[in-house]
Amino acid sequence: MAKRYSTETYVQGILAGDRVMLSRAITLVESKLQSDQELAQQVINGVLPQAGNSIRIGITGVPGVGKSTFIEAFGNHLIKEEGKKLAVLAIDPTSQRTGGSILGDKTRMESLSINPQAFIRPSPAGKSLGGVTRSTRESIILCEAAGFDAIVVETVGVGQSETAVHGMVDFFLLLMLAGAGDELQGIKRGIMEMADAIAITKADEQNIQKARSARVEYQNALHLYPLAASGWMPKVSICSALKGTGLDTIWQTIAEYLQLTQKNGYFEKKRRDQNLQWMYEAIRQGLEDHFYSHQQIKEQLPGIAEQVKEGQKSAFAAAADLLKLV
Amino acid sequence: MAKRYSTETYVQGILAGDRVMLSRAITLVESKLQSDQELAQQVINGVLPQAGNSIRIGITGVPGVGKSTFIEAFGNHLIKEEGKKLAVLAIDPTSQRTGGSILGDKTRMESLSINPQAFIRPSPAGKSLGGVTRSTRESIILCEAAGFDAIVVETVGVGQSETAVHGMVDFFLLLMLAGAGDELQGIKRGIMEMADAIAITKADEQNIQKARSARVEYQNALHLYPLAASGWMPKVSICSALKGTGLDTIWQTIAEYLQLTQKNGYFEKKRRDQNLQWMYEAIRQGLEDHFYSHQQIKEQLPGIAEQVKEGQKSAFAAAADLLKLV
Repeated sequence: MAKRYSTETYVQGILAGDRVMLSRAITLVESKLQSDQELAQQVINGVLPQAGNSIRIGITGVPGVGKSTFIEAFGNHLIKEEGKKLAVLAIDPTSQRTGGSILGDKTRMESLSINPQAFIRPSPAGKSLGGVTRSTRESIILCEAAGFDAIVVETVGVGQSETAVHGMVDFFLLLMLAGAGDELQGIKRGIMEMADAIAITKADEQNIQKARSARVEYQNALHLYPLAASGWMPKVSICSALKGTGLDTIWQTIAEYLQLTQKNGYFEKKRRDQNLQWMYEAIRQGLEDHFYSHQQIKEQLPGIAEQVKEGQKSAFAAAADLLKLV
Repeated sequence: MAKRYSTETYVQGILAGDRVMLSRAITLVESKLQSDQELAQQVINGVLPQAGNSIRIGITGVPGVGKSTFIEAFGNHLIKEEGKKLAVLAIDPTSQRTGGSILGDKTRMESLSINPQAFIRPSPAGKSLGGVTRSTRESIILCEAAGFDAIVVETVGVGQSETAVHGMVDFFLLLMLAGAGDELQGIKRGIMEMADAIAITKADEQNIQKARSARVEYQNALHLYPLAASGWMPKVSICSALKGTGLDTIWQTIAEYLQLTQKNGYFEKKRRDQNLQWMYEAIRQGLEDHFYSHQQIKEQLPGIAEQVKEGQKSAFAAAADLLKLV
C-alpha cells in the first residue's frame, strides 16, 4: 500500500498546487478502504473553502467522434490563448470491460499530458458508475483547490454516465460527426436535450460542407426545444482539431454562457442545487449499499425478482417482503 | 371509514367485472392505512394472474392542449369502433395545489364517464408523486383484471410525472398544439424524446394548415433522434376531437406499434423490465421513507443541507454524517 500522509500535508500540498499531492489525494478518493475514505473526506473538507473557482465543462460524444483529439486541441487552446489551467477527468465505468477506452491510454493526449498547466486523470478501473461519479465529483473539488480553473469531465455518449456528468458540470458540450448517416445514431436519447452547445468535429478537408449543413440542421432542431431554465439557447458550431479551427468559437460560446448565467443568477443556483442533489444521492447510495449487502437480501432477491419479472408477484408486495428482512 | 370486505370478495368482484368492487379496491390501494395497504396487496396478488392483457397508453400535453376533450373523443372511438373496454387513470400530484385539474372535474369527460364500457378514476388528492405513481400502477393491474383492455394514463406535460408514466405504459402519446409560438414551449425537456407518437390536436377550421406544417416539422425533428430500442420510429399525426377526425389514425399507429413490438419481443421485455424497475423503485422508496422519517434526521437535515448548499461541507461528508445517525 502506498504511503499515507496527514490531512494537513495533503491540504497544504494541494493548496500549493503540488500535482503529486493532488494525484495522491485523488487516489485516496478512489480507494475502497474505509480508512482512506475517511482521510479523503477530511482532505476534501480541508480544501473545500478554496474550491469552486472554475468552469466545469462536460464533454461527450460517441466513440469515433474524436473526443481525445478534440480535448487535446481545445485544452491546449485554453492554456495558450485563455491562460487557463486545465484538469481533465473521465467518467467511464465500462473501461475495464471494453479494455481501456477514454483516457485509459494516456498517450492519446500526448502534448496535453506533458503540459505543466494541464492535469490529466484517467477513470479509475474496476468501479461502478456510482463509484466513478462519486470519485470524479470529489476530484473536481481537489483540482479546483489546486488552482485548476477549467475542469473538463469526459464521458462516452452511449450510456447513463452523461446524466451523472450533466449533474456535476456547469456547461455540457456534445461532440457530433457530420454526415454519419442517421445523424444522431448512437447518441442516447435525451443527451441532445442536455447539451448547452454542439460542436461538429472533423470539419476539415472534404468534410467542411457536410459539417456546415449539419450545423444548420442541428440549430433548427435545437430551436424546437423549450428554452432551458438558464435562459440559454444552445449553440451549434463546427471545428477541426486537426486544423485548430473553431476552438476559439467554442470557448467564446462557453464564455457567453458564463456571462449570461452568472448575471441572471442561474450559475450559482445550479451549483448549489447540484451540491444538495449530490448529498441526497449519496444518502440514497448509502441506504441501498447497506440494504443490498445484507445476507438475507442477497439470498432471497434473485428468486423474488424472477417472480416479479414474470408477473407472478406484484412489485410492491415483493419490495415489502424484502424490506421486512433487514 | 368505509366498509372493508374479505380479500376473496374483492378478488371475485373484480374478476367478475364489478365496477363498484373495482372502485373500492382502488380506494384500498390509495389508502394510507397500514391495514388497508396489506389488504390491497392481497387483493392485487389475487388478481395478478388475470392482469396484463391490455394496451397501456400514456397521454400527456401541456394545459390547454385539450387532453380531456381528446381522451373523451379517443376513448369513445376505441369503445365504439375497436370494441375496447377503456379505463382512464390520472397522475397529477399537483391537483390538490392548483385546485383540481386533470380528471378532478369528472364532468369534463361527460359522455365517457357514463359509458358502461369506460371506467374513469381521478388522481387521488393530497398525495405525493411517489404515492400517486404507486397507486396508479396498482390501479392498472386492478383495471386489467376487471376486463378493461385499454388503459389510458393521463398526466400533465410540465413536471416529473411523465417519466413515472413512461415507466408504466407500453405506448406514450404526446399531444401538441400547432402554432403555439415557440412550438415546444411549456413541454419539459426530454418529454418529446419519450414519445412513441405525437398528435397535433385541434386540427380543425382555420387550424388545419398550421397543424399540417407542424406535423412535417415534428416529423423531421423526430428523425434526428436515434432509433429507439423498440425499433419503432415515432409518428406524428393531426386530429380534431371536435370533428372526430384523425382518431382512427392514432389508434392505427398504436396497433402498428403493438404489432411490431409484440413480434420483435420488445413489448414483453419492456413489461418485464418495468415490473422489475418498480420493485427496485419501491425498495428505494421504502428505505428513504424509513430514513427521512427518523427523528434525528428530521432535526439535523435542514442545517446540514444548508451547509452543503453553501459549499461549507462536502455532499459526501454530509451524507456519511447523516447515515451514522440512523
